[in-house]
Amino acid sequence: MLAKRAVADLVEMVTGELRIGASFTIGEYVLPRVLAAFSKKYPQVKYSVTIGNTELIHERALEGSIDLGVVEGHIEDKQLIIEEFSQDEMVFIVSKQHPLAKSKYITREDLENETFIMREEGSGTRIALEEVLQEISLKPVNLITLGSTQAIKEAVEAGMGVAMLSKWALRKELKLGTLKIIRIKDLKKTRSFTVVRRKERFESKACYEFRKYIMNGGASEVLTLV
Amino acid sequence: MLAKRAVADLVEMVTGELRIGASFTIGEYVLPRVLAAFSKKYPQVKYSVTIGNTELIHERALEGSIDLGVVEGHIEDKQLIIEEFSQDEMVFIVSKQHPLAKSKYITREDLENETFIMREEGSGTRIALEEVLQEISLKPVNLITLGSTQAIKEAVEAGMGVAMLSKWALRKELKLGTLKIIRIKDLKKTRSFTVVRRKERFESKACYEFRKYIMNGGASEVLTLV
Repeated sequence: MLAKRAVADLVEMVTGELRIGASFTIGEYVLPRVLAAFSKKYPQVKYSVTIGNTELIHERALEGSIDLGVVEGHIEDKQLIIEEFSQDEMVFIVSKQHPLAKSKYITREDLENETFIMREEGSGTRIALEEVLQEISLKPVNLITLGSTQAIKEAVEAGMGVAMLSKWALRKELKLGTLKIIRIKDLKKTRSFTVVRRKERFESKACYEFRKYIMNGGASEVLTLV
Repeated sequence: MLAKRAVADLVEMVTGELRIGASFTIGEYVLPRVLAAFSKKYPQVKYSVTIGNTELIHERALEGSIDLGVVEGHIEDKQLIIEEFSQDEMVFIVSKQHPLAKSKYITREDLENETFIMREEGSGTRIALEEVLQEISLKPVNLITLGSTQAIKEAVEAGMGVAMLSKWALRKELKLGTLKIIRIKDLKKTRSFTVVRRKERFESKACYEFRKYIMNGGASEVLTLV
């Protein structure tokens, strides 16, 4: 493989199509800016990006319909090479008018009577919230399920309840001041952003350069904004 | 049916679960705020919202796994009752740094060498763009496909190219000044927002009230923001 790579480096330009699969938080909030920066360096590459939940991107990586995947959910699979390139933090959010908006730290009791707005079953963001709720032994009395991060942010802004989202998804709302981050003291929920690809599969030069770009901190510019 | 409705009105409270299906633009940008307002009026109702493309919501309405659907794409189906409740306009967008950002109106020629960032095949937003491109006889030289509205906005902000989206999806970016709307003179692309439900299916009181709320302009508060 290494020899093949070396030969390819000599003959291949960084060109062609790069098929990327991304789970929702990365695909919607991180990847577009990384792609924009990368494409200034390599303007010949064409992109197509599939966005779906981690499970779908996992499948696509296995079947080879994408060259690489970038996901926020946990994947274990011996057929894949899985490399962490960044960390994500999940935070609680309320609207700026919410009584808890002024608190930097809240307690479990503060959340007891709140309506929780969460993603559908199978979403990595929902799994993260369920883990936190279990950790603080909280069973929400009211639950609303909304099938997208964007919809959840709008509902929280409109005062429907509280939610837990990746802080990377909150950049604009924090700038506009419409949403406030609240945290539970001594509780920090993090997860890994990873890049995944099939083992023993020839990697195009474009794919290799893109992966190197991410692994060497190419996402860091985007990821230092909150 | 009418007699059944009248009896139900007498005995039913506006309570229970309301299962709504929504296509992306409505589901992510319009519905959450409508729901927030409606739920202040009827706090007993529980909601679950499925977000998918128009085709998926159409299927769900037929099979009865949702009580009603709100969609931006065109549906024709004799098994469904389809009522228009609002209009949507599709507009071109560029980043604030883009040379075209200062133009209120652009020409076909202005777009000739631009990279177009568009949704995947099967998306109503993509179909709308393809109709406009055909109308002005433009075949983009460069195409990037990104699987979500949010991802497209981030990519346009980062300077990757131009896109066409519903103006309801642009509220925050217009407030922040990161995106600019540009229009082609004498060309206005509109589409209908409709509420769809199965014929000859008993409608719960909650569902009836919600539909009435939308049809009587309950979405208008949200829909006058741009």
